[in-house]
Amino acid sequence: MSSLFRFSELGSRMQPSPIRELFKMIRQPGMISFAGGLPDPSAFPVGPFADCADVLSRDGREVLQYGASEGYPPLREMLLAMTADRLGYEVQPDELLVTSGSQQGANLIARVLLDPGDLVIVEAPTYPGTIHSLRNAGARFATVPCDADGMQVELLPEIVTRSEAETGRRPKLIYTVPDFSNPSGACMSLERRHRLVAFAAELEIPVFEDDPYGKLRYTGEALPNLKRIAAGDPQVIYASSFSKVLAPGVRVAWSVAAPEMTRAMVLMRQGEDLCTSTVTQALVAEYCRRGHLENHMSHILEVYSRKCQQMQLALNTHLAPGSATWNEPEGGFFFWLELAAGSSRELFDRAVGEKVAFVPGAAFYPGDEEQIGEIHTGDLFARLCFTFADEKAIDEGCRRLGRVLGG
Amino acid sequence: MSSLFRFSELGSRMQPSPIRELFKMIRQPGMISFAGGLPDPSAFPVGPFADCADVLSRDGREVLQYGASEGYPPLREMLLAMTADRLGYEVQPDELLVTSGSQQGANLIARVLLDPGDLVIVEAPTYPGTIHSLRNAGARFATVPCDADGMQVELLPEIVTRSEAETGRRPKLIYTVPDFSNPSGACMSLERRHRLVAFAAELEIPVFEDDPYGKLRYTGEALPNLKRIAAGDPQVIYASSFSKVLAPGVRVAWSVAAPEMTRAMVLMRQGEDLCTSTVTQALVAEYCRRGHLENHMSHILEVYSRKCQQMQLALNTHLAPGSATWNEPEGGFFFWLELAAGSSRELFDRAVGEKVAFVPGAAFYPGDEEQIGEIHTGDLFARLCFTFADEKAIDEGCRRLGRVLGG
Repeated sequence: MSSLFRFSELGSRMQPSPIRELFKMIRQPGMISFAGGLPDPSAFPVGPFADCADVLSRDGREVLQYGASEGYPPLREMLLAMTADRLGYEVQPDELLVTSGSQQGANLIARVLLDPGDLVIVEAPTYPGTIHSLRNAGARFATVPCDADGMQVELLPEIVTRSEAETGRRPKLIYTVPDFSNPSGACMSLERRHRLVAFAAELEIPVFEDDPYGKLRYTGEALPNLKRIAAGDPQVIYASSFSKVLAPGVRVAWSVAAPEMTRAMVLMRQGEDLCTSTVTQALVAEYCRRGHLENHMSHILEVYSRKCQQMQLALNTHLAPGSATWNEPEGGFFFWLELAAGSSRELFDRAVGEKVAFVPGAAFYPGDEEQIGEIHTGDLFARLCFTFADEKAIDEGCRRLGRVLGG
Repeated sequence: MSSLFRFSELGSRMQPSPIRELFKMIRQPGMISFAGGLPDPSAFPVGPFADCADVLSRDGREVLQYGASEGYPPLREMLLAMTADRLGYEVQPDELLVTSGSQQGANLIARVLLDPGDLVIVEAPTYPGTIHSLRNAGARFATVPCDADGMQVELLPEIVTRSEAETGRRPKLIYTVPDFSNPSGACMSLERRHRLVAFAAELEIPVFEDDPYGKLRYTGEALPNLKRIAAGDPQVIYASSFSKVLAPGVRVAWSVAAPEMTRAMVLMRQGEDLCTSTVTQALVAEYCRRGHLENHMSHILEVYSRKCQQMQLALNTHLAPGSATWNEPEGGFFFWLELAAGSSRELFDRAVGEKVAFVPGAAFYPGDEEQIGEIHTGDLFARLCFTFADEKAIDEGCRRLGRVLGG
């Protein structure tokens, strides 16, 4: 079809994401979905959150007005305290930016750092939402494989050297989800964290540490964030979000980065959406101020931990031995299955026929044509989200999956 | 200072907007500000809006979850009806996109249409927020001067021909605020509207019609939107917002554009912020569903109309005859003064000394280096917002301005 519009190079290569196309196929009655990476809606703190609307009456004149691009002051105060606690140093106001979801943080980082053709190091597999933002800024990707302990950081020096040689460019950014990666569920080992921070500092390559799941640990011991290990080192750009610990619908997240980075992100976002809604920021701040977040966290830790165990049990029960392998996640939202054979995309089609859905692994790798060096396709893998479905559906969904997978 | 980060070309040229720098200077006790283009916070519908939080209890499980990138279905239903009424044709679902403020709409349009160096036709003076988005996508600007009847559309053919010759590129977009322009307050005449639509159709140049103020008419007769005149012609991309008629803090706006344009914008926004907060969309939808918007519109039309008359009277009373000229606006937020002599930037410094503030005209023109053809600087002009200050402050502020202006 000839176009009415003369789109930009970027506009003309906008394609529906493969994941969203899959999601359309699974909207069917009776479908059990492990596909979307969604919180459990029955665990949302509906009542307490709605009660916080008092703040809209109390501070309405301020809350309904335009807000600062840096964020709503009462929420910023709270976030400074929260992040200081999590990152182990006194985060300064000029390091903090409230964003409209972590997606916006990723997009701002991409736009202020990347020129077309610039090289970014990502984990394989990695989170496709961030790939989307980076790709829109023109990134090419070199991938570092992951295992049960997260990104195989020991391969990083060679991969950087090789991809530099191939492209003539030094990588602009290393992107990682060290705690309970989406999709692999893996948690980066302490040793690798130290090694990554040291390597990035030595090569002066910024690290984008994306931490939406870090507080959602069900077993094992918490490991320090990269930003904490780096002792506030400006090389590490940290981002987290209320989406997984409170509710995605608020679209409130934040980043902690060196002042000059934060400043560039603030100026960029003024041309993107001016500011995050003061209404939702005020609701979230009020929710935290009333101490609800701690209670809610205890509640969802209990719910998600149970669901995680439930899926582990159901997979063990219903999948034929040897048909797939996986590591039981210690936190986050996902199981990451490696099939013994076959294609997870083909498995998906058969699974949908049996009314159970997951996301085939290919969605979590950059496209072949945008990868430098070794190419990963992920076709042996499948991501299963255990937080969204209820416990009965988890069991029945795994039973159906076992049937499709055979063995 | 050497940078820790290797910013992108775009990231490294991010500069604080001159307007925001001015805003810092005017944060002083006793300052009367006509500078910010802000709604009157005392007119915000605080009580009725806060009451709508019932929807957060009622539909919490849906409202707190991730939402569709196209927008929250109940709000979309409402917007389809509202826009059909305003645009005079049955707007189709695949033409409608809910955005996080009009700023995001401008940003998405810019990114899907513009490659670096592409040419955009804008009014002189024009809205700097949109310039910011367009500039971030690499735009260069050719300007069409405005008079009391808005963009001098009759000059458009020559300006397009000249700028094409100079740059070797056909303009990608024409940007206009036909109803009560920010900053000029002008309303484009009916004849010019028809001429613009015909010209754009003939040359196949899309028109971005930005309509935040159209419903805020205090005197005179409403004129049809460009999109209405074009009878839904896909060449016209229409955008409007709840910021000025309800509250900017909700960050809810929308665009109506040809399906292929809307689709590209949806895909782009998935890499920018995924979706607009379902929480604020649900609050706005509930507010409209309860019929509050009509009542509130009547109220602010009364308040703003009075303030507009008040500023007209105060300027007539306190400014020495011949020291400045202006047209009384028929709607919107702004008076646009042309000084008889001098520089509005210098006047600003003296005015701030007398504790009254406005925005000097230069802020409403693209930078010299990014303009093609005739260069406008706006240094004889000053934008005065009449909606934010209370009526007493309007009178006293104009008195101070008269004193500074002399005559």
